[in-house]
Amino acid sequence: MLQLIEILGIISFALSGIIEARRKHMDLVGVYTVALIAAFGGGTLRDLFLDRTPLFWVANPAYAIVILMMAVGAFLFPSLARVPDRVLLLPDALGLGLFSIAGTGFALDAGVAPFIAALLGTTTGVFGGVIRDVIANEVPFIFRNKYLYATAAFAGCWLYMLLMIIGVEKGLAVIYGITAVVVLRLAALRFGLRLPGGH
Amino acid sequence: MLQLIEILGIISFALSGIIEARRKHMDLVGVYTVALIAAFGGGTLRDLFLDRTPLFWVANPAYAIVILMMAVGAFLFPSLARVPDRVLLLPDALGLGLFSIAGTGFALDAGVAPFIAALLGTTTGVFGGVIRDVIANEVPFIFRNKYLYATAAFAGCWLYMLLMIIGVEKGLAVIYGITAVVVLRLAALRFGLRLPGGH
Amino acid sequence: MLQLIEILGIISFALSGIIEARRKHMDLVGVYTVALIAAFGGGTLRDLFLDRTPLFWVANPAYAIVILMMAVGAFLFPSLARVPDRVLLLPDALGLGLFSIAGTGFALDAGVAPFIAALLGTTTGVFGGVIRDVIANEVPFIFRNKYLYATAAFAGCWLYMLLMIIGVEKGLAVIYGITAVVVLRLAALRFGLRLPGGH
Repeated sequence: MLQLIEILGIISFALSGIIEARRKHMDLVGVYTVALIAAFGGGTLRDLFLDRTPLFWVANPAYAIVILMMAVGAFLFPSLARVPDRVLLLPDALGLGLFSIAGTGFALDAGVAPFIAALLGTTTGVFGGVIRDVIANEVPFIFRNKYLYATAAFAGCWLYMLLMIIGVEKGLAVIYGITAVVVLRLAALRFGLRLPGGH
Repeated sequence: MLQLIEILGIISFALSGIIEARRKHMDLVGVYTVALIAAFGGGTLRDLFLDRTPLFWVANPAYAIVILMMAVGAFLFPSLARVPDRVLLLPDALGLGLFSIAGTGFALDAGVAPFIAALLGTTTGVFGGVIRDVIANEVPFIFRNKYLYATAAFAGCWLYMLLMIIGVEKGLAVIYGITAVVVLRLAALRFGLRLPGGH
Repeated sequence: MLQLIEILGIISFALSGIIEARRKHMDLVGVYTVALIAAFGGGTLRDLFLDRTPLFWVANPAYAIVILMMAVGAFLFPSLARVPDRVLLLPDALGLGLFSIAGTGFALDAGVAPFIAALLGTTTGVFGGVIRDVIANEVPFIFRNKYLYATAAFAGCWLYMLLMIIGVEKGLAVIYGITAVVVLRLAALRFGLRLPGGH
């Protein structure tokens, strides 16, 4: 089940990466590189930090091939590049939720402490986008966009773990955790919620 | 003993990261992220390069929790954000010395050659700050600040190893090595020492 | 044989890194850091992703020492800093070819799927330069220079694998693969070849 969620997260993040790269008029290799980094970056850090081998995308070559087909598709349907800003936010929020909860699950499977599992889940969800922005020489999204991004992921990771502790079935806890991240993120965007202290 | 030094280095670097992030008006998540990267970045690279598992901060969840409490504390005492530039340099120099020598020690324990141990020690001391600056989309400190930063760390790592070779007791060699890094760095700042060739 | 190729690649990339850093008037530590990152970055990612231990430059301390001697040499012969832009492109193309094919070979030895081997080979060839640019806070070469950089590496990796599949002797396949990358890259620069879609 964690793997199915991971696949959906990969597709969501690859899509957001492809749309962003197309809007910057990158060529096919640039688009594919950005999509790979957005989709694989967070999970790669998680696997390296947990010493999980082989890496998830080395073990599943289909992931990289599917993203190549998506990148090629973006050139056949160039209207994707003209999608409004808002549309990018949905696959991104979905990827954030899917990756954060899957990352927390993998970390718990590896036997780490809950606080570290929540940190690694958040890292899995957030750092694909951070590395993508760093590589593109931009101030990362996470520092620019103040509307509960890492915070939503972190809160969802804890909800997922707390639900399992009080005896909720794992599959349900996963779904509630993902939903919490996505709803919290979209609500923060919609209503302008932000943490105190930043500006 | 290496672990005690590591803890002091983590606190020093987390402090310098928190002060810097507060001065940039980041919110709690931004401050915590910068502090984690500054405190964990160099040691994470070292552990990955040496294939030490689990990572030091995965094995010791208390580190991440203490840094969270420090980040929260920075919001309760906002005057921290108004600290003058100079005050940042002391915890930073201390973190540099502590991490460089601890990193060299861990590398020697892993059986690598002395030259590589000095490189990995310097990496441990320097790259937390480099990654912090890269993530914040700035030219890294190490390339901007010409006053013997990596050089001080590298020299201290060699002093530490040479002292042990000539039979100095390990605990003393550690203290001399750390002191050499801190004194060299602070003296370079005070007297404007720099390497030839750069400007 | 893969190791001999790796050594040549390290020297090529270290040279391109040193020339670039000298032109930016960096001091010795800056030049050495940039040279190390350019020469070791791609292979380090490959080794981490494949969980190959110890890392190639930890296992061979001579690599880091040779690059230090090259960096010191660049200060004794400062005319290197005045080399025209074009001259940088040859060692860079050579390093790209050598690292990409060696990286593909190491990945195949580790038993990964061909598509992933080609991706990891391209990563080995390309990401030393990407990390070098990211650390120096520039938009990476790979996104600025549209003349078949990653594409040349990727194509050469596939040629190398296809030649071995149809029974060509490994040593010959390596030479043809490297030649293909270098010729494709230099031809693209000479004739302004680029992928469609980018501008």
